[in-house]
Amino acid sequence: MKSFNVAIVGPMGVVGRKVASILEERNFPVKDIRFLGTERNKDREIMFKGERYYTETAEKGAFTNVDIAFFCVESSISKTLAPIAVREGAVVIDNSSQWRMDKEVPLVIPEVNPDALYGHKGLIANPNCSTIQLLMVLKPLHDVCRVKRVVVSTYQAVSGSGKNGIDELNSQIESFTGNEAFKASFYPHEIFSNLIPHIDEFNENGYTKEEMKMVNETKKILDENIMVSATAVRVPVFNCHSESVNIETEIYISPEEAREILGKSKGVKVIDNPSSHEYPMPVLADGKDEVFVGRIRRDFTVENGLNLWIVADNLRKGAALNSVQIAEALIERNLIKGD
Amino acid sequence: MKSFNVAIVGPMGVVGRKVASILEERNFPVKDIRFLGTERNKDREIMFKGERYYTETAEKGAFTNVDIAFFCVESSISKTLAPIAVREGAVVIDNSSQWRMDKEVPLVIPEVNPDALYGHKGLIANPNCSTIQLLMVLKPLHDVCRVKRVVVSTYQAVSGSGKNGIDELNSQIESFTGNEAFKASFYPHEIFSNLIPHIDEFNENGYTKEEMKMVNETKKILDENIMVSATAVRVPVFNCHSESVNIETEIYISPEEAREILGKSKGVKVIDNPSSHEYPMPVLADGKDEVFVGRIRRDFTVENGLNLWIVADNLRKGAALNSVQIAEALIERNLIKGD
Repeated sequence: MKSFNVAIVGPMGVVGRKVASILEERNFPVKDIRFLGTERNKDREIMFKGERYYTETAEKGAFTNVDIAFFCVESSISKTLAPIAVREGAVVIDNSSQWRMDKEVPLVIPEVNPDALYGHKGLIANPNCSTIQLLMVLKPLHDVCRVKRVVVSTYQAVSGSGKNGIDELNSQIESFTGNEAFKASFYPHEIFSNLIPHIDEFNENGYTKEEMKMVNETKKILDENIMVSATAVRVPVFNCHSESVNIETEIYISPEEAREILGKSKGVKVIDNPSSHEYPMPVLADGKDEVFVGRIRRDFTVENGLNLWIVADNLRKGAALNSVQIAEALIERNLIKGD
Repeated sequence: MKSFNVAIVGPMGVVGRKVASILEERNFPVKDIRFLGTERNKDREIMFKGERYYTETAEKGAFTNVDIAFFCVESSISKTLAPIAVREGAVVIDNSSQWRMDKEVPLVIPEVNPDALYGHKGLIANPNCSTIQLLMVLKPLHDVCRVKRVVVSTYQAVSGSGKNGIDELNSQIESFTGNEAFKASFYPHEIFSNLIPHIDEFNENGYTKEEMKMVNETKKILDENIMVSATAVRVPVFNCHSESVNIETEIYISPEEAREILGKSKGVKVIDNPSSHEYPMPVLADGKDEVFVGRIRRDFTVENGLNLWIVADNLRKGAALNSVQIAEALIERNLIKGD
């Protein structure tokens, strides 16, 4: 079996760390691994599969001999560094939003559109976390009943903002219990016991970039004709994004049929037994690989419609896990070199 | 000016207390006031307008000479006690869901359908909190562009469950900071750092009663033809309910026109300046009388559609304030006796 030289770019962030732990968990065929961070974070110790590694600087020359580079950094860094990594021979799987809408770059959820990987040019984009969990559920339904329109409202955890988001909620909880005043420092407003209907920047059209990612990435990944209307909201939950999703379909589908289809879909788990108080929730999805769906019920206000409630671990399937699965899909299809 | 003998039924609950404080704030013409609770809670001291009162038992005979009785108790109690109060001559303004869909009972938001008060038979129902804040915003828009269909996802605070909900979130926050394990006791699942897509009981059709309240009460209050598709979710926020609302209208309306119309609507406040990070949030609405609306933007997936984000203090406009405003509307219209 082949094995691969892997690099994790941004290894100290929450997604970078998660990529490392998922590579371990899944026994990914790692030949050698490099942890590439900022100059400031150089020489930090990282344990991987029981061995000690030290972070190196992510810079020109660092990707020689790297087969797969997992980029877990912000768009601005990916913008300059990813092309360098590709030129040096690495296949880059990028978690930022920098390359997602680039026509030359496949945007891939392995369970949804693995064929988009064929003909890649060394750079593959990992979709937005909210898009991934949405499409994991929409794809199997779309195959059967053609989804026409989606109205989605998100309930997004602070881990989606990385360590800064988690630290901010933690510190505000502490201030609250200590009866101390607190102020937002990372988010534009306090997040403890509050909701912020604002994720990423605002566009001219009144939507945030986060909302438009769901609109545009859905078209690129699943079907150009699907129309998405999105509202993205940050909630005081540490981990796992949730989505209230209303769909209109071309062909009628009953909740029972939808449950059956989704129950057979790889990577999706139906939890839908409300009379026993069983439905997806962040505390259930935390640390899990699957995308959870429940509260599946007919929307009586349209001829062919369903309401659904979708929850997933945004750090795993929404980011790190999907990236590793992309690498696995490349290997399976012989679309990447290795020894 | 006339003044009235008032009773608050359920004076120790969060809504009952709020009714008392709102009567004080608004200088409601109270001649005498009685606080009627359970036998167990008898003789508890309550301060009102600087005077000391003691709770009495809510029972047959307690409503003699009462002009207005604010019922802030659960449905089962209202079911037996409200008719007794009416027979004894009180006009009952009921906060439970017991009477809302009764054809003989007006269901009233004073800014929306005050005329429904005419011909009342002594019992008036206060709508569900989520319905009130939704319709405060829909009504002015409906008057202009005819709302046809609404898809709403709620983000509901624990105060909506009363003291039990608030105590449960508080105690779970304390356990979290103290590194202690915690379990749900009041809610079916933990609410700290979690979301529960389950408010009130489940119906056969897969919807919760809370969701169906929005569907049915909207028809009764605003327009039989408006179709509502609702998802109700409990979030770890102490106070103020939020709603992500998607509407389709018969006549096109631009976000600018919607802002202008809503800006002139009594009881509604537009906060919609995203570039300065200004939008409605629970922390802003807390303790306020207005229903706040923002994030108003065109829904590009339908010909005539808007997305909106609505936040209100569910204990005030969603419950206690609306009840007091109903009483004021009755007085203005001479639909209640007093001295």
